[in-house]
Amino acid sequence: MPKIVDHVQRRAELAHAVWRVIQRDGIEHASVRTVAAESGWSTGALRHYFPTSDALLGFAMELCFDWIAERLNRLRAEQAARPAGTTSSFQRIRELAHIVLPLDDQRLLNARVLMSFMPRSLVHEALHEQERRGTGMLRMAFTEVFEVAERAGELVPGARADRQARQLLALLDGLNTHHLLAPRDYPVSELVELVDAQLRATFAAQPEVQSG
Amino acid sequence: MPKIVDHVQRRAELAHAVWRVIQRDGIEHASVRTVAAESGWSTGALRHYFPTSDALLGFAMELCFDWIAERLNRLRAEQAARPAGTTSSFQRIRELAHIVLPLDDQRLLNARVLMSFMPRSLVHEALHEQERRGTGMLRMAFTEVFEVAERAGELVPGARADRQARQLLALLDGLNTHHLLAPRDYPVSELVELVDAQLRATFAAQPEVQSG
Repeated sequence: MPKIVDHVQRRAELAHAVWRVIQRDGIEHASVRTVAAESGWSTGALRHYFPTSDALLGFAMELCFDWIAERLNRLRAEQAARPAGTTSSFQRIRELAHIVLPLDDQRLLNARVLMSFMPRSLVHEALHEQERRGTGMLRMAFTEVFEVAERAGELVPGARADRQARQLLALLDGLNTHHLLAPRDYPVSELVELVDAQLRATFAAQPEVQSG
Repeated sequence: MPKIVDHVQRRAELAHAVWRVIQRDGIEHASVRTVAAESGWSTGALRHYFPTSDALLGFAMELCFDWIAERLNRLRAEQAARPAGTTSSFQRIRELAHIVLPLDDQRLLNARVLMSFMPRSLVHEALHEQERRGTGMLRMAFTEVFEVAERAGELVPGARADRQARQLLALLDGLNTHHLLAPRDYPVSELVELVDAQLRATFAAQPEVQSG
């Protein structure tokens, strides 16, 4: 079905154009007009699919969360394929956390674009709902694994799965923000270590951490 | 010197107009024109002081960090006035952290405005420098108190002052972001408790936490 492939491809190209404008000039410059210029589409053609800049931005944010969902699904499939008992909850949560750390270009772009959307999500209802769905997906993924650890008695006394998920999610977003603003103060290696430190403080027993 | 008082007063009024526009419509709508309309100034008069929207935003961000600096100085004076040995490092850092949590209207406004500035700071050099100075001020304040605790052997094995300061700063920014986006998932009381949990994980001995 080449038509569908085309459609998916063209949407991705468009999203990349939105992201380039956001990265280079800031989200306040991402309009139907500037993205049309960036992507080589005519303003009319673009406006046919996305009548407003907010619709266009909503689409670009959605694709970011789609990427996260894809990485999440891929990781879950990988983890499920491992022999039972070979991956600790500590390790599973660590791998989950790495889905949203800027460990490669795609994740760095993800972090940057999602951070750019945060303030706009405060004042635009549709973007806010989208942001909530994406964040909810991540929070649920973290909570599920923390719940396994909690039921197994692996967490330090008093640690509750849902609260640990919220703590970790806030830390990850804060770390990403600081990395983007000051990569030398918060290099990627430091982000990984600070997340490890947070997990070590949450788990009663300290498993060997596998690299990756 | 009524003239200086007037000047300070008018600057504050102007900053409030900028913040109102940011809070209501989003930072992308904060221009010389919209802020002039909001504040009752003429566009020409406003442009005399702030030739560009970025200059105007820089001024509004500066005032946010000024507020933080004022709260910091007030807290340091208060802490210095207490009898020696009555305030633990744990308590000092906790009080410092509360300077940037949304515990009253002014701090909530602070958190919201500073979050709105983050993405813009990524693409505007002058705003980025300002953001760096403000964040540097906070990081230094946290590091200083963590260093006192580190020298006194109060931190858990392996904890280093500078790293703990960075960890806490990232957590605070992440918590503020999530509170703004979802105050019901991250109520202020939960923010306070998550910070306490982080501090308890960092300090070897667990002092009684004083309310406030």
